[in-house]
Amino acid sequence: MANEAARTRVAVLGAGGWGTALAVHWSRAGRDTLLWAHNAKRLDAIRSAGENRDLLPGVPVPPGLKFSASLEEAAAFAKTIVLAIPSKAVGGLTGRLAALVSSDHILVSAAKGLSIAADGTPRRMTESIRDALGAGCRCGVAVLSGPSHAEEVGRGLPTTVVVAGDRAESLRDSLSTSSFRIYTSSDVIGVELGGALKNPIAIAAGIGLGLGAGDNALGALVTRGIAEITRMGVACGADARTFAGLSGIGDLVATCTSPHSRNRRVGVELAKGKPLDQVLRELGMVAEGVESSRVASDWAGRLGIELPIIGAVNRILFQGAAPRQEVGQLMTRSLKDEF
Amino acid sequence: MANEAARTRVAVLGAGGWGTALAVHWSRAGRDTLLWAHNAKRLDAIRSAGENRDLLPGVPVPPGLKFSASLEEAAAFAKTIVLAIPSKAVGGLTGRLAALVSSDHILVSAAKGLSIAADGTPRRMTESIRDALGAGCRCGVAVLSGPSHAEEVGRGLPTTVVVAGDRAESLRDSLSTSSFRIYTSSDVIGVELGGALKNPIAIAAGIGLGLGAGDNALGALVTRGIAEITRMGVACGADARTFAGLSGIGDLVATCTSPHSRNRRVGVELAKGKPLDQVLRELGMVAEGVESSRVASDWAGRLGIELPIIGAVNRILFQGAAPRQEVGQLMTRSLKDEF
Repeated sequence: MANEAARTRVAVLGAGGWGTALAVHWSRAGRDTLLWAHNAKRLDAIRSAGENRDLLPGVPVPPGLKFSASLEEAAAFAKTIVLAIPSKAVGGLTGRLAALVSSDHILVSAAKGLSIAADGTPRRMTESIRDALGAGCRCGVAVLSGPSHAEEVGRGLPTTVVVAGDRAESLRDSLSTSSFRIYTSSDVIGVELGGALKNPIAIAAGIGLGLGAGDNALGALVTRGIAEITRMGVACGADARTFAGLSGIGDLVATCTSPHSRNRRVGVELAKGKPLDQVLRELGMVAEGVESSRVASDWAGRLGIELPIIGAVNRILFQGAAPRQEVGQLMTRSLKDEF
Repeated sequence: MANEAARTRVAVLGAGGWGTALAVHWSRAGRDTLLWAHNAKRLDAIRSAGENRDLLPGVPVPPGLKFSASLEEAAAFAKTIVLAIPSKAVGGLTGRLAALVSSDHILVSAAKGLSIAADGTPRRMTESIRDALGAGCRCGVAVLSGPSHAEEVGRGLPTTVVVAGDRAESLRDSLSTSSFRIYTSSDVIGVELGGALKNPIAIAAGIGLGLGAGDNALGALVTRGIAEITRMGVACGADARTFAGLSGIGDLVATCTSPHSRNRRVGVELAKGKPLDQVLRELGMVAEGVESSRVASDWAGRLGIELPIIGAVNRILFQGAAPRQEVGQLMTRSLKDEF
């Protein structure tokens, strides 16, 4: 592992909070790291300020971290390429990468969302990546997910995540550090869906918080939330056990209970009665759970699966439903056996 | 259900925070409720102040709530008797109740701990109650557990819990209110062990918090904590699914993430290097997780089960182990497949 880690080069695509945190972390831990962003000015601002002042303030950039706004340069620099960009940009960026990567490369999705393919089908991120790479490309594809707020990874606080997909063990060995521990999983579908579906539940947690619910209700919400995610995941081919792991319940807990969560913040603001576009404008960052609520609700409908919480969030986000009424309906389901 | 609720009389034994909260809640919701405590002066103080100023400040006592320091009176008042006293007092108090109750009575344990029988065997609360009632007594026994901080139940914040044991459906129907929703479970062992074993994990959460860990680590701790509780529970005859429910993961989340948790507070203080006796003296209340860590560690040893987190808490509590070192060892287990 030491040898592997020593020769690791990694390119992180995306200079938002998450991409910056990963690049800073790996660079500080001795990996030869390059941070790519489409916007060269943003990279210049990070380099000259010595930190990503807008999206990850207070986390100093190590002197060894390289910057580039050239995808060609990023793909030539490292065989391990981590995509830390908003989900909706993953397909497009991968399309540009397709001609630059070989079978030695591996694209690691670190985005926690869902997208819709051109034919209207919902897609997980590794599916979007494979779609965009095309059938002829032999480049590896994997996913990295788990309880991992950027603010904490950037500061080196202890974090454990899961990697699944191609060359998972090699990624685990080369990218793990003493405070960022990576475990392997053989369940790509489960790892991806856990990361994507926890965000709508975090919006629900924020709505509850905004309406004055306490920690008792939060415990209940997380309990029902992971059951709902598991039900959906299993219907999509995931292993139920994955949702009892770091990328399932672990990430759900870290997201629903943390002030770092943007999705939870969206819920808090919605509970105040603000319209969604105002909430998102004021947030100024992507909250993946908004789009994921819509995609998952639609998808569950086609599969004939009930998603009471995510469905309620979707109605509040997109159909003008009143937060208090939706929460009330969730709370007053009939009293019966727990399972 | 409406009729049943209307004729419900309930006696709550124990005027700590939890007993007061339950009695206040049921009285406010129209149940004919009596609050019993050994200490008549404490009851007088609550009555004259109109609140339990020491243990549940800010929650007004409804005018209809009855008070008594006589067990005879409590047992004559209601067939439903809820024990909201420290676990170590449950056996003794039940012994005094044995002669006062009939087959129409039901004793409901609301204590979340473990005890040791005279022969050294670990006992769940319903086992302690049955031991103390004696083989000839036909009184019913049940358990009530789930994510339910007293501070929130007292204020009427939305709460969901589980009841298991004798006449569970009748208890569910008679004691549920619009903001305190009770579901039934057929798994007494699982419901009890979830409530008892979450407290040592909450001490670990407090230790992590005190040492500066963040929400990423908390997500990981809860994930491994519920796996550890489930492993132990299944070895003791519980149904694994129970730990995925309100009295398992739900209560664990509510406890590990809440400033209301005494057990978490104990962990935070231990992380500062304070000795246990000082921590407990300053807390001034019972933290069930301290005793449960000891009983569970001993019990797991006999069963040949590994409890990495609870074992670490036990070593910190009783064997002088250093919090930072124990947490470091938990964090640096070898990197491998997640399951």
